Amino acid sequence: MDSSSQHSHSGNLTKPLAVVLVSGGMDSCVTAAIASKEYELAFLHLNYGQRTERRELQSFHDIASYYGVSRKLVVDVQHLRQIGGSSLTDEHIEVTKADLNRRDIPTSYVPFRNANFLSIAVSWSEIIGANKIFIGAVEEDSSGYPDCREVFFQTFNVVIATGTKPLTDITIETPLIHLKKNEIVQKGIDINAPLHLSWSCYQNEEQACGVCDSCALRLRGFQRAGVDDKIPYRVKPIYH
Amino acid sequence: MDSSSQHSHSGNLTKPLAVVLVSGGMDSCVTAAIASKEYELAFLHLNYGQRTERRELQSFHDIASYYGVSRKLVVDVQHLRQIGGSSLTDEHIEVTKADLNRRDIPTSYVPFRNANFLSIAVSWSEIIGANKIFIGAVEEDSSGYPDCREVFFQTFNVVIATGTKPLTDITIETPLIHLKKNEIVQKGIDINAPLHLSWSCYQNEEQACGVCDSCALRLRGFQRAGVDDKIPYRVKPIYH
Repeated sequence: MDSSSQHSHSGNLTKPLAVVLVSGGMDSCVTAAIASKEYELAFLHLNYGQRTERRELQSFHDIASYYGVSRKLVVDVQHLRQIGGSSLTDEHIEVTKADLNRRDIPTSYVPFRNANFLSIAVSWSEIIGANKIFIGAVEEDSSGYPDCREVFFQTFNVVIATGTKPLTDITIETPLIHLKKNEIVQKGIDINAPLHLSWSCYQNEEQACGVCDSCALRLRGFQRAGVDDKIPYRVKPIYH
Repeated sequence: MDSSSQHSHSGNLTKPLAVVLVSGGMDSCVTAAIASKEYELAFLHLNYGQRTERRELQSFHDIASYYGVSRKLVVDVQHLRQIGGSSLTDEHIEVTKADLNRRDIPTSYVPFRNANFLSIAVSWSEIIGANKIFIGAVEEDSSGYPDCREVFFQTFNVVIATGTKPLTDITIETPLIHLKKNEIVQKGIDINAPLHLSWSCYQNEEQACGVCDSCALRLRGFQRAGVDDKIPYRVKPIYH
């Protein structure tokens, strides 16, 4: 490294500091694995009243332990539950069963969720001196949320540049954005990401349901990669 | 109005719906007054651990009562306190006394605060069907926060367009952005904004201190407009 300005102020670090948004799901697990190659990691987790909040938080801490990450921030983003409107945060709205050919936005969509999450990440990054924010968003092979598209992150980078101090230099990295789920699984296997510690199900906390959007995308990814997914499932359909 | 699609679903409204960020300060008070001319109002208030949180919330409710606003959302944005780094949210950092000729960013700067606030406003707007978000930001005659500049709001509008559902049409309005404080006072007087209900001091809750950045900007505005500010002050310096 030739730029000491990128380094944390702690003095002990030999790598620049990056914040990784770690939901506890497969994508964020692989993203953390990728970031760990070049960066000292700080992990950020958001509780926002999602049904599987407790289980995801467990995965967050498990993945942090795996990578020896001590700098962790867990934020309760209660306003997304207050605001409602999503099956993830409102128990009166049913979690849609997966239809991977569907083109509309599923009921699990939480309005403008990633902007809320990235704003928190930027505030934290500016205080701790991180220059990168990693997020495991996936554009094509995903549920079709508008705030998971590359153009959203590109424009958010412009907002960061205009909305932080002049000397602040923070940009968002989306290393998975154009990968398919099976490529994400394969990437995770290749770089020893602890996929067995991750949790993706939107519905259950003990045994993954196997049929919600998130389970379906994950299982199809493992199946297409020819790899066994070792977390427990209630049912394990074959997806094409 | 010729566009019923802009209207709320309640059926009783004759104006389109707008969310107004109401801190309780003078600028948000005048902004609410401006928005009330053309929009049905929904008021959003953010508690983020600022020193004068209780007093600002009182002003929020008082201004809401003045305009008969029943659709109110108060959100505890606790992560800005968790993250720290500002004299507004960290009692170990002193509130800088005003120096209205200073060009650096004062200690009251909360990193990326307005992005956090606007993200919440957009999430709420998408759920309740509001098309406008009003915020009383001021660019030139202000404390120099980077996220109060027009370019920040312009780029945030692009992020909203890319990060919400395709049919969602939400834009930010900043009617005060290029006004001087005395022009804001005059505008407020002209349209009967309840300035006596607003609160600007960053330091005190009973008597405004008169010397913090926010008090100094407010007092200078009233003095230049030739109008008496009716809220109680501990000291009332003359600013030039």
